[in-house]
Amino acid sequence: MFGDWLKAQAAAAPERPALVSARGERWSYAALDAAVEQTATRLSGLGLAPGDILATLLPASPQHVFIVHAAARLGLALAPLNTRLTSAELALQLQKLGCRVLVGLPDARQTGLASGSLDLLSPAGLADLPGAAFTPPAFDLARLQGIIFTSGTAGASKGVKLTFANHFWSAQGSAARIGILPTDTWLSPLPLYHVGGLANLFRCALAGAALQLCDPDPQALQAGLADGASLVSLVPTMLKRLLALPDLETPRLRLVLLGGAAATPDLLAEAAHRGLRVAATYGLTEAASQVATIDPDSPAQLAKPGCVGRPLLNTRLRIVGEDGADLPPGSPGEVLVQSPTVMPGYYADPEASQRALQSGWLHTGDLGYLDSEGCLWLLQRRSDLIVSGGENIYPAEIEAVLAAHPAVAEACVVGLPDPEWGQHPAALVVLQPGLSVSAAELLTFARQTLAGYKLPKSIHFVPALPQTASGKIARRQAQELLARLEAGQNV
Amino acid sequence: MFGDWLKAQAAAAPERPALVSARGERWSYAALDAAVEQTATRLSGLGLAPGDILATLLPASPQHVFIVHAAARLGLALAPLNTRLTSAELALQLQKLGCRVLVGLPDARQTGLASGSLDLLSPAGLADLPGAAFTPPAFDLARLQGIIFTSGTAGASKGVKLTFANHFWSAQGSAARIGILPTDTWLSPLPLYHVGGLANLFRCALAGAALQLCDPDPQALQAGLADGASLVSLVPTMLKRLLALPDLETPRLRLVLLGGAAATPDLLAEAAHRGLRVAATYGLTEAASQVATIDPDSPAQLAKPGCVGRPLLNTRLRIVGEDGADLPPGSPGEVLVQSPTVMPGYYADPEASQRALQSGWLHTGDLGYLDSEGCLWLLQRRSDLIVSGGENIYPAEIEAVLAAHPAVAEACVVGLPDPEWGQHPAALVVLQPGLSVSAAELLTFARQTLAGYKLPKSIHFVPALPQTASGKIARRQAQELLARLEAGQNV
Repeated sequence: MFGDWLKAQAAAAPERPALVSARGERWSYAALDAAVEQTATRLSGLGLAPGDILATLLPASPQHVFIVHAAARLGLALAPLNTRLTSAELALQLQKLGCRVLVGLPDARQTGLASGSLDLLSPAGLADLPGAAFTPPAFDLARLQGIIFTSGTAGASKGVKLTFANHFWSAQGSAARIGILPTDTWLSPLPLYHVGGLANLFRCALAGAALQLCDPDPQALQAGLADGASLVSLVPTMLKRLLALPDLETPRLRLVLLGGAAATPDLLAEAAHRGLRVAATYGLTEAASQVATIDPDSPAQLAKPGCVGRPLLNTRLRIVGEDGADLPPGSPGEVLVQSPTVMPGYYADPEASQRALQSGWLHTGDLGYLDSEGCLWLLQRRSDLIVSGGENIYPAEIEAVLAAHPAVAEACVVGLPDPEWGQHPAALVVLQPGLSVSAAELLTFARQTLAGYKLPKSIHFVPALPQTASGKIARRQAQELLARLEAGQNV
Repeated sequence: MFGDWLKAQAAAAPERPALVSARGERWSYAALDAAVEQTATRLSGLGLAPGDILATLLPASPQHVFIVHAAARLGLALAPLNTRLTSAELALQLQKLGCRVLVGLPDARQTGLASGSLDLLSPAGLADLPGAAFTPPAFDLARLQGIIFTSGTAGASKGVKLTFANHFWSAQGSAARIGILPTDTWLSPLPLYHVGGLANLFRCALAGAALQLCDPDPQALQAGLADGASLVSLVPTMLKRLLALPDLETPRLRLVLLGGAAATPDLLAEAAHRGLRVAATYGLTEAASQVATIDPDSPAQLAKPGCVGRPLLNTRLRIVGEDGADLPPGSPGEVLVQSPTVMPGYYADPEASQRALQSGWLHTGDLGYLDSEGCLWLLQRRSDLIVSGGENIYPAEIEAVLAAHPAVAEACVVGLPDPEWGQHPAALVVLQPGLSVSAAELLTFARQTLAGYKLPKSIHFVPALPQTASGKIARRQAQELLARLEAGQNV
């Protein structure tokens, strides 16, 4: 009875604002529900059965929102693919999913995806479908809502399964920490193929609030805030650009939820100076977004720049050492998470699931510590992860592409601090004996496979990669070396 | 893991305000949790097992709040008894429950309740108990939270069973309609033995908001509002008295939730004139409080005095005729409710449960209609129900007491409009042939058994009760007759 969250809101509050597009079009809950019903009817004619996977390759448009809700209504698991990926990256994900239908904007990449087993459908094509009547399957909170990939290529590619329960408890935890009212408008410049954007969609639907889609550029954000947004999700890069604007009007803004990457104390201080209340958050796709978030009503927590606050309601954290033993407050170790928001596992990857979910705890791979008040400080995202402008980049993926060039023997990719993006990828490359390639040629080669944001900002050739005593690549040393190389220092 | 709502909040937000007593004492979530743990430990020494019933006879004090949460922690079902009942009324309820332990303030009534099978415990006595360690039982939303009696005497006495799921979904529905933030303070002048007061407690615990207890007198309410309450639950009598005060300061008040009885258009107009935003609500103990509530952000709904708005999120209404068929908008009939907030049934009363819960719908007995926008207008609470100052009074109960007097052959009790209390009970009495009793003597007799608020405000002797053609008591005629008699008109 209370499974279709959107339908329930449309019955309870049909006139309330539900959705605002980046162009300012508005849908009430009744109008959104009608659009979703129409979309579901059209999708229903495609012959997909409850439990089947529907993939999308779309920006965070109203049509994409319709499809998210329509998939839920039809019992389909939604796999929203990252629109910044290359054709090769997308093909791998679609293959892994065994997916029959992809709804995406027509472009050159998609043409490369067409195959006998995949229906490619544009939103316009979807609108032309005759559709078919359908009976929504019985709802169960434990049902799969969708699959979000954490990475693009085969090696690192893991599809995070998220259930409706994951989203539901995530929304509950978020509401208890930062609050949400049915009168709120949540400005969301995040894609729906990232858990942050998707979580905003479900939080609003569950609270009866309005989701306002927005391009991530500062002018669009400024316009959305001036338009009366009361909540906004930003990554540090966006906040920084927004604060660079001279006239920032935020007539109804209650809170900036700042996630995706660590914010510098300077940025937080500048935001506070400009009158913005900012709650830094630490989240993971594997935990359906927020895990810990600053309590925006706690002056003590707001006075801890770099801290991401206490775990959300119903979420528990442990910090463990390399031996798996719990560490006392102040001691850094791996962050483990237990929560009704934690994924049931990775799609079709029992081994990775087992590694990630040992004895009921999500092993994040991220390093941090709890302070004496139970607040989390994150020292480093999982050692191999680069976060650039809110996008997660997995070095292994880039390394594999670089190493695929005939002239490359070995590559090591690390993240370097970036004033604009938080981090950017940089590469050390060892050439095959007697062969040669230029950095520019190597980048052109990588561009065929890798999304633009994953391309190393600099490639430096070295005779050998720095190694640890045990023969592993010494990533920390590689990082220091690349930092000096980028700064133009002699090494 | 996420069953103990208070413990979860205390972990997530220990410093947030959780409880304010009528005297202004304050508890953070951590402090409240500690007090509840202490109370649970003490109660645990009494030898009650999970599933057993714990009764209370207490005002809405902090100690009572501790016990509500402690019972939940121990897996006990809580039966908060109405403190306005007489010893005889209480004895019947305790007997029905087969209850072993009652925590109540010592008074004369309680002495009458003491028996071999019932432990009477004062809050002070509870505080002196040594206690015992306990292991909280596994939580299940379907578990019984407690039992609330809708009436005092055997005939009409029905114990409404409410589960944690009922309270959880009630809080969800309320939040989506009127909103609640973790920064809210909910001023509650309602007893915890009424579902309204209990619902406020759980709503706050689930949202991480603060519950502020308050005496129901206008000065206390005024002080609570001036102190910064952002939400307040009132019945019309309280609102009317509050508005009679000259200087009403409501610096943070966002909304008045007005329930318990119908509010007159005049009262609503006066409230609006004084700058108060009022959401009228229709609720039932059997549906864990709110069923329908005005959307306070809808000017169209606020412009409908007498309307109680649309059903809450996940709640569905039907209006049916006497033949059980659905009636179109505008046609009055019995209000049926389907919702995850509806009770699983009455305690130890399968017949009444079956009557109330036919084919998955709660038959409220209340009369109303839906307008073209799906908003509910209530014409009359269940025909026999009198609502006086927010208290439900069942005529059958008073009639049975009056008829128990040797000189009384028959009695009929109805509700008459009351400028102060909404309604008050009045009685028509037929004497036994040849016997006599005065109205004053009859009231003295009834007072031995009935709580004061149930005593008829007037008793009039008639040779026979008005009857319908089929020989039933014509209550509507009795009501008209009593209205004229009270007005001193000749009949």
